[in-house]
Amino acid sequence: MKVGIIGASGYTGQELVRILANHPKVEITVATSERFAGSAIDEIFPSLKGVIDLRLSKLSVQQVVRESDIIFTALPHGESMEVVAACMKGGKRVVDLSADFRLKNKDLYERWYGTHTCPDLLSEAIYGLPEIYRAEVKKAQLVANPGCYPTGAILALAPLVEAAMVAPLGIVVDAKSGVSGAGRNPSMTNLFCEVAEGLKAYAVAQHRHAPEMEQELSARAGEHIHILFVPHLIPINRGILSTCYVRVVGETSTEQAYAVYQGRYEDEPFIRLCPSGTFPSTAAVRGSNYCDLGVLADDRSGQLIVITAIDNLIKGASGQAVQNMNIMCGFPETMGLEQIPLAP
Amino acid sequence: MKVGIIGASGYTGQELVRILANHPKVEITVATSERFAGSAIDEIFPSLKGVIDLRLSKLSVQQVVRESDIIFTALPHGESMEVVAACMKGGKRVVDLSADFRLKNKDLYERWYGTHTCPDLLSEAIYGLPEIYRAEVKKAQLVANPGCYPTGAILALAPLVEAAMVAPLGIVVDAKSGVSGAGRNPSMTNLFCEVAEGLKAYAVAQHRHAPEMEQELSARAGEHIHILFVPHLIPINRGILSTCYVRVVGETSTEQAYAVYQGRYEDEPFIRLCPSGTFPSTAAVRGSNYCDLGVLADDRSGQLIVITAIDNLIKGASGQAVQNMNIMCGFPETMGLEQIPLAP
Amino acid sequence: MKVGIIGASGYTGQELVRILANHPKVEITVATSERFAGSAIDEIFPSLKGVIDLRLSKLSVQQVVRESDIIFTALPHGESMEVVAACMKGGKRVVDLSADFRLKNKDLYERWYGTHTCPDLLSEAIYGLPEIYRAEVKKAQLVANPGCYPTGAILALAPLVEAAMVAPLGIVVDAKSGVSGAGRNPSMTNLFCEVAEGLKAYAVAQHRHAPEMEQELSARAGEHIHILFVPHLIPINRGILSTCYVRVVGETSTEQAYAVYQGRYEDEPFIRLCPSGTFPSTAAVRGSNYCDLGVLADDRSGQLIVITAIDNLIKGASGQAVQNMNIMCGFPETMGLEQIPLAP
Amino acid sequence: MKVGIIGASGYTGQELVRILANHPKVEITVATSERFAGSAIDEIFPSLKGVIDLRLSKLSVQQVVRESDIIFTALPHGESMEVVAACMKGGKRVVDLSADFRLKNKDLYERWYGTHTCPDLLSEAIYGLPEIYRAEVKKAQLVANPGCYPTGAILALAPLVEAAMVAPLGIVVDAKSGVSGAGRNPSMTNLFCEVAEGLKAYAVAQHRHAPEMEQELSARAGEHIHILFVPHLIPINRGILSTCYVRVVGETSTEQAYAVYQGRYEDEPFIRLCPSGTFPSTAAVRGSNYCDLGVLADDRSGQLIVITAIDNLIKGASGQAVQNMNIMCGFPETMGLEQIPLAP
Repeated sequence: MKVGIIGASGYTGQELVRILANHPKVEITVATSERFAGSAIDEIFPSLKGVIDLRLSKLSVQQVVRESDIIFTALPHGESMEVVAACMKGGKRVVDLSADFRLKNKDLYERWYGTHTCPDLLSEAIYGLPEIYRAEVKKAQLVANPGCYPTGAILALAPLVEAAMVAPLGIVVDAKSGVSGAGRNPSMTNLFCEVAEGLKAYAVAQHRHAPEMEQELSARAGEHIHILFVPHLIPINRGILSTCYVRVVGETSTEQAYAVYQGRYEDEPFIRLCPSGTFPSTAAVRGSNYCDLGVLADDRSGQLIVITAIDNLIKGASGQAVQNMNIMCGFPETMGLEQIPLAP
Repeated sequence: MKVGIIGASGYTGQELVRILANHPKVEITVATSERFAGSAIDEIFPSLKGVIDLRLSKLSVQQVVRESDIIFTALPHGESMEVVAACMKGGKRVVDLSADFRLKNKDLYERWYGTHTCPDLLSEAIYGLPEIYRAEVKKAQLVANPGCYPTGAILALAPLVEAAMVAPLGIVVDAKSGVSGAGRNPSMTNLFCEVAEGLKAYAVAQHRHAPEMEQELSARAGEHIHILFVPHLIPINRGILSTCYVRVVGETSTEQAYAVYQGRYEDEPFIRLCPSGTFPSTAAVRGSNYCDLGVLADDRSGQLIVITAIDNLIKGASGQAVQNMNIMCGFPETMGLEQIPLAP
Repeated sequence: MKVGIIGASGYTGQELVRILANHPKVEITVATSERFAGSAIDEIFPSLKGVIDLRLSKLSVQQVVRESDIIFTALPHGESMEVVAACMKGGKRVVDLSADFRLKNKDLYERWYGTHTCPDLLSEAIYGLPEIYRAEVKKAQLVANPGCYPTGAILALAPLVEAAMVAPLGIVVDAKSGVSGAGRNPSMTNLFCEVAEGLKAYAVAQHRHAPEMEQELSARAGEHIHILFVPHLIPINRGILSTCYVRVVGETSTEQAYAVYQGRYEDEPFIRLCPSGTFPSTAAVRGSNYCDLGVLADDRSGQLIVITAIDNLIKGASGQAVQNMNIMCGFPETMGLEQIPLAP
Repeated sequence: MKVGIIGASGYTGQELVRILANHPKVEITVATSERFAGSAIDEIFPSLKGVIDLRLSKLSVQQVVRESDIIFTALPHGESMEVVAACMKGGKRVVDLSADFRLKNKDLYERWYGTHTCPDLLSEAIYGLPEIYRAEVKKAQLVANPGCYPTGAILALAPLVEAAMVAPLGIVVDAKSGVSGAGRNPSMTNLFCEVAEGLKAYAVAQHRHAPEMEQELSARAGEHIHILFVPHLIPINRGILSTCYVRVVGETSTEQAYAVYQGRYEDEPFIRLCPSGTFPSTAAVRGSNYCDLGVLADDRSGQLIVITAIDNLIKGASGQAVQNMNIMCGFPETMGLEQIPLAP
């Protein structure tokens, strides 16, 4: 199958190329970049030297449509929507890695991101978290690939919400992310010296991934779920650790909570439960599509602590996008994603 | 004034030597280490080369008592208590950096740390957080220097608790610490490769610094305060960021909460409030005795987020110990602690 | 094919398991560890959770011989030699990752490492650098897998030495290594805080990998080649960068030197030349079996600078061991080693 | 004394403010920044909060001349020269941290940096390495503060060159630098993710600090000294380690070489020799104005290895600038620079 990548020169683009280059069923036929059009991909990413023969081109939607069976869009939010619409008009299936089609509500989108010019596609887009929407993804023409933070938080919280174990108010998601989530653009705040040997929160209770978490968890709950979301920037390249604090309705024990997760995720190929009472580390998922999860009940305060670890560029972005593609195309869901975590 | 340091070969010992070597009113007359007795201090810590002429000796309490006016003990918990008792019997004042005299309740101590053989000193020890116990520290013979995590958490929460703004149940302290808090002993879990490029929680809801936080905050509140404490290990050398989530009694705004902190801390030389609505970074306090603090009210969930940043080896250990010594001795409280944070 | 791994709980053992678990032609049937016997491999290495069902056992050479067709030994030097001898007596082929069979000269070995109790096997062992000894590896019963530093240095220098372009005296290899090369044992010098935000040389002109470089380069040259080898410890997990300075016999240009490498390595699947005049980065080979190489002639001083980058745990250890296994067994040489570098 | 800082919003500017704020004899009266004019210094650098009350202004040379007794210029090369000339015309003494007045030869400057519009000042400027030019600095109106790499390399090599122990051709300086040397401007190549967990050489044999080293060492030698200079980028914030390889004229031993350094540097307050046969680490000088040095003779190849470690922002930039100011003003040379290295 022929694959096109629109916006291939950021970290998620690089990661798509890396994963797809070893995927047995697909071939990357076209990859675009405005900044680096004309360059071979390995001039931009020396890690890909000798791996794939691919030259970046300026975006022509017509060309991409012509040369691809399925298209990944890895553009910044706002820039993606019209490109996606055009690809769909060309009859192609699209996995969009931007935020443009994740929120169902146009007003909500515009409050956080700016004007939406293709609102009619919002209802058509499937939120591409396979652990929840696998059946819908299978038939979708447009998959909105989840944000990195929402992936970690929703996988942590959905089973509890579905089991009606959670008080809807006051859930805290204290997330810690590596720096690659900030992308590959010139910047002062993400300079090595501004980040290394440091530790800070940012966008406290004001990050635009919060409404995405609330939308999906509220849909699972059948009532509005509020998330207090505080992201932190950590001096590592890859990884998100999401430490979630929830107030339990009624009583529960670590064992009972653990059993809920076991039941919910037992057939999921990319969710790994840590042994009961233990917790995950991002180092143990780095370079893989896994989401590791641990849970503990704190009797004294009636709260559950749930922690997930993902590689933000893989399960939090490009790996999940390929997982969605596999589902859409009827390939085995793990195809091309068997890479074992690289530790240390 | 002559100062003795018992247990000078760990990171807190090194930091004591570094700070005291530049203190205009004191002289280090004796420093002990079982592991490195006989070595010059700069053989153990090349950073101290040419800075101070000091040879480590095996511990003889009699010698230390004889040669010192005031004594710092930086031994592991359990090993400290009898040494402290002996120094006090020798008539000396002591700042103890171990956990041995922080908890007032013998049973509580023994549940978390093991047998306590000098319980009669527990009531005599003053908990050395100057922002709360300055007057008591002044007259103390024994100061129990606070733990690194409790310092960050108590400074974040005490003003709210004192103002009766906090619901006593369900306070969450999600703390992130650099690795130096784990000390300087051979270990597999703290090897560079086990920590770098990784991120994990540990001792989830089971860390022994939680009872210390609860003791002090409950004392401020006049009722039992429960803390759900989850520490995380972060690949940096120095720094603790404590992200605290509290449920407010009644209503409050960011401005009101901010005003509480301004009022409470306006004369404190080592507490710096971030501009309202902004939050601290450990990079901005590294190498200094400062505690930076930010606060935000989340209207939607009725919670406050309070974040503090400290250098765990300074305000979280040796700097605070010297601050206590300054208070005990009637020196200006900031003497020897004027070092401006080193950034980047 | 059935594979045994003796000494599976260090970093090279972990990496062998990771690579072999995805190798289509082999199955790991037995893996030993004295420290962790009885544990499942994913208790020791959570990254391997769900990847492979393997329990560590105490070493019984008989059992390993019985259950394996080919054996990897990843023991410390000194401990490996007798185990290797016993495996060979059992009729098995062995790839030894220790230093025990790399040096041909017993006296030289003993000067650097200690007593050698199986000296008769020294002449039988093939030095497992496929780019030089591919034909010999094919037929070998015992392959001595090269050290990490020698791999980077020999691949940099062998083409020049073979082309008789190098003055034999005064070659400098200034190498920089990540910390995983130091292994996974409790240690003070490799604690995170002793390494992070630091930079130092060690074993200056006295590292035991120097004689290994000299042995192999002298063999290529037909005369004694002296190497001044200075390794440095760098705060990264993986990667060795070897910056080599050689004095040229006669004259040469960057283009001529580049052509020598092109000719020498054009059919090598794991050597990638950087575009002429540019240099490699360890980040671009991390997680792969590649060795990237760049060269420049400095007219003014008549010297060549040659730089190689490898992942010390892969091309510098376990990847190269699997490459040797592939050659020994007649598998495609790149089988199981197609992993594309993970960047960032 | 009143001090002005022109260009205070980069890392060297920040470091000047940090050091001078604690200097007992000076007061910073004016600090300029085009990018951040109007901001308080602690808005740009939160680490300086509460430390100093200073607002950045747009550059007006007249104002700076009026309000300062001595002026530091920390502008990019090319931008500095005319500002320096104007300050001097205003009768002020200047310490220039740019490269604009380091090279004595206009043509050489222009080959590496671009047009020089104030060439008549080149002969007047004193190269501000106090260990060599202390007497001249005392009387200078213009001090050209050395580059970070040249500081480490010249301090390593000058004693050998002065003692005529070195063959003039083929000296290698293999330097490794932290990232702060690259400054605080938006950039893609210095993003955290482009640097962390990586290791590479850059500007190989083509870095513009090489002519600066050659100028100064040739002046010491009385003949042309050629330096093959290869800098490497290392994922740390601060520190340069310079590993120098020199061919000895005649014979020498480690002890003899060590004695040369002892004799040359015995009265230097900021040079620390490591115990004979041992080598420095950047971690042991971080945050200080020290330069640590170690030396070893390699009998086999007739070469000396000399290694220096400095903090590139202090002895390699702002600390050395203050040291020069102290000398110019007749203050004790170490005043304001007594800060003990911060480790870990």
